[in-house]
Amino acid sequence: MVALRFERGALWALDQTRLPWQELELELRDAEAVAAAIRCLAIRGAPLIGVAAGYGVALALSRDPDGLEAACATLTATRPTAVNLSYAVQRVRAAALASPGDGPAAALAEAHALHADEIAASDALARHGADWLAGCSRLLTHCNTGALAAPGRGTALAVVAELAQRGELELVLAAESRPLLQGARLTVYELRRLGIAHELIVDGAAAGLIAAGEVDAVILGCDRVAANGDVANKVGTYAHALAAAAAGIPFVVAGPTSTIDSACASGAEIEIEQRDGSEVRAPVLGSGHVAAELTLADTPCRNPAFDVTPAALISALVTERGIVSPAGGESVLGLLSGG
Amino acid sequence: MVALRFERGALWALDQTRLPWQELELELRDAEAVAAAIRCLAIRGAPLIGVAAGYGVALALSRDPDGLEAACATLTATRPTAVNLSYAVQRVRAAALASPGDGPAAALAEAHALHADEIAASDALARHGADWLAGCSRLLTHCNTGALAAPGRGTALAVVAELAQRGELELVLAAESRPLLQGARLTVYELRRLGIAHELIVDGAAAGLIAAGEVDAVILGCDRVAANGDVANKVGTYAHALAAAAAGIPFVVAGPTSTIDSACASGAEIEIEQRDGSEVRAPVLGSGHVAAELTLADTPCRNPAFDVTPAALISALVTERGIVSPAGGESVLGLLSGG
Repeated sequence: MVALRFERGALWALDQTRLPWQELELELRDAEAVAAAIRCLAIRGAPLIGVAAGYGVALALSRDPDGLEAACATLTATRPTAVNLSYAVQRVRAAALASPGDGPAAALAEAHALHADEIAASDALARHGADWLAGCSRLLTHCNTGALAAPGRGTALAVVAELAQRGELELVLAAESRPLLQGARLTVYELRRLGIAHELIVDGAAAGLIAAGEVDAVILGCDRVAANGDVANKVGTYAHALAAAAAGIPFVVAGPTSTIDSACASGAEIEIEQRDGSEVRAPVLGSGHVAAELTLADTPCRNPAFDVTPAALISALVTERGIVSPAGGESVLGLLSGG
Repeated sequence: MVALRFERGALWALDQTRLPWQELELELRDAEAVAAAIRCLAIRGAPLIGVAAGYGVALALSRDPDGLEAACATLTATRPTAVNLSYAVQRVRAAALASPGDGPAAALAEAHALHADEIAASDALARHGADWLAGCSRLLTHCNTGALAAPGRGTALAVVAELAQRGELELVLAAESRPLLQGARLTVYELRRLGIAHELIVDGAAAGLIAAGEVDAVILGCDRVAANGDVANKVGTYAHALAAAAAGIPFVVAGPTSTIDSACASGAEIEIEQRDGSEVRAPVLGSGHVAAELTLADTPCRNPAFDVTPAALISALVTERGIVSPAGGESVLGLLSGG
């Protein structure tokens, strides 16, 4: 299973909206097709959309050398919360501009380099995280952070896989992650393929299970880390952090350093993507029972895709360059200068 | 809309598993039928299942004077967490035993009295709660606590309705309450009928919205209140309580005093009902897309129906006899002696 690969002049992406029901690859040949796949969540996960957008810039240049700026703008605008997206676009754009005679080739080479960097980051952070979590055999995770969300083995789920490989894992509780069920659809799909023992729970069950002593640590991913250590991640994350703090168990966030946004002072500055209410209404509307005046088809919804967890609740931020403890007052910016 | 009514020798109950798609009344003529309706959640809500079970005892006696103890055992065993159930069964049983010559009539009279008591309790607690919450115009609620969950106008949603009637309400955020979506199906249905402005959210969005200053107070119901003030309520409640405490907004629990279990020392003693995993798996399986090896039909699930919120997080417990503050160290048992 490869979430993303560049071959024969096209980006091939597993359509994650169809999983776990169907394994189908999309063939993306220009920046607009890549942007559309990111927008509809066929490609998702902060590091993965970064790499996809990087290839998108290269595809745009190979079609039209004058299309660079428009493609960068289109790709950056697809989703506002994950910073990896603009990081990747800027990195590939800069490489193209630095090679005016050979922009398309330079851009594609940089996109490949970015992809390789993220695969290496996944391996390194998996080892760091597994070292840090030694002794925690019952983990709770949220959303999807495996090979579908990030190149290589993923982020938080790469740590989980590494712990399983070391024989240290007993059970993973996977929160379903409403509204789009990335936990129920994608994490369960990945854990099953990895042969890791797991149980699916509704998001609201996490706090009670943590309080009841059923969980040794929470580990999940991130879409943007602010300079002060605040983290934006899939909606529902903050409640898990509060429960972990109340129970005195570690709350661990995993992501490559490309997720750290040094220009963003704190979580209050992170734009939270608001998505369509149809995602929230779906389970009531999609039931097959229809009675026009009662289906609540026009029920107003509030649908933030992310929430912000303050640094004080984050026991450890696991990256490919090592680990810092935002809750312990350590700066996440130190990880960037070390590169 | 009447959730429950006793007429022409039968208990008529709106089948809440069919809402909001279909309004259909079940005709229940014996204790086993009442028990089955409670088990499958056609009748639900702690105070409502209490009243239904009370009528169930009366129905059993009218059919077979020797069936009293068996009926009481069957009805009490339907669901373990809400204490109103055993309270109601014991109350109607005691009335029957106290009138050996006229057990069936005495039982039915007592069931009617219990029903009337809960309707009066709903009105009184609505007024107390609205007085206490004066100035809180943006409320967040969980699960369903209106006229479908308790006789009269309900519990927490009765407070909401009272505030709306007083013109003090701006908006209600209704958490969908996975897995069975009592919020999305039933609370939205009731709020729409009441003409109260509302927005539906996924459960995981509540904590972030509370932290972002979008909510003035959380108000919800309870299935059992322990002697120390700990509260068992629909799974997902505890996370909302943590978020409210972190944001410094009131966390208010509403329920009749029949929900207080003086024999239960603390939340640790409350049995949490574990329900079938199919409720958790449903959104992935029920999608219509089927690919045998990929549907995850056998995904193991953990499905606690309730969680426990410690007394220290509960700003106010609103009952028909008045209000105490468990977080402020006030005893909930004082409410019982006052009766």
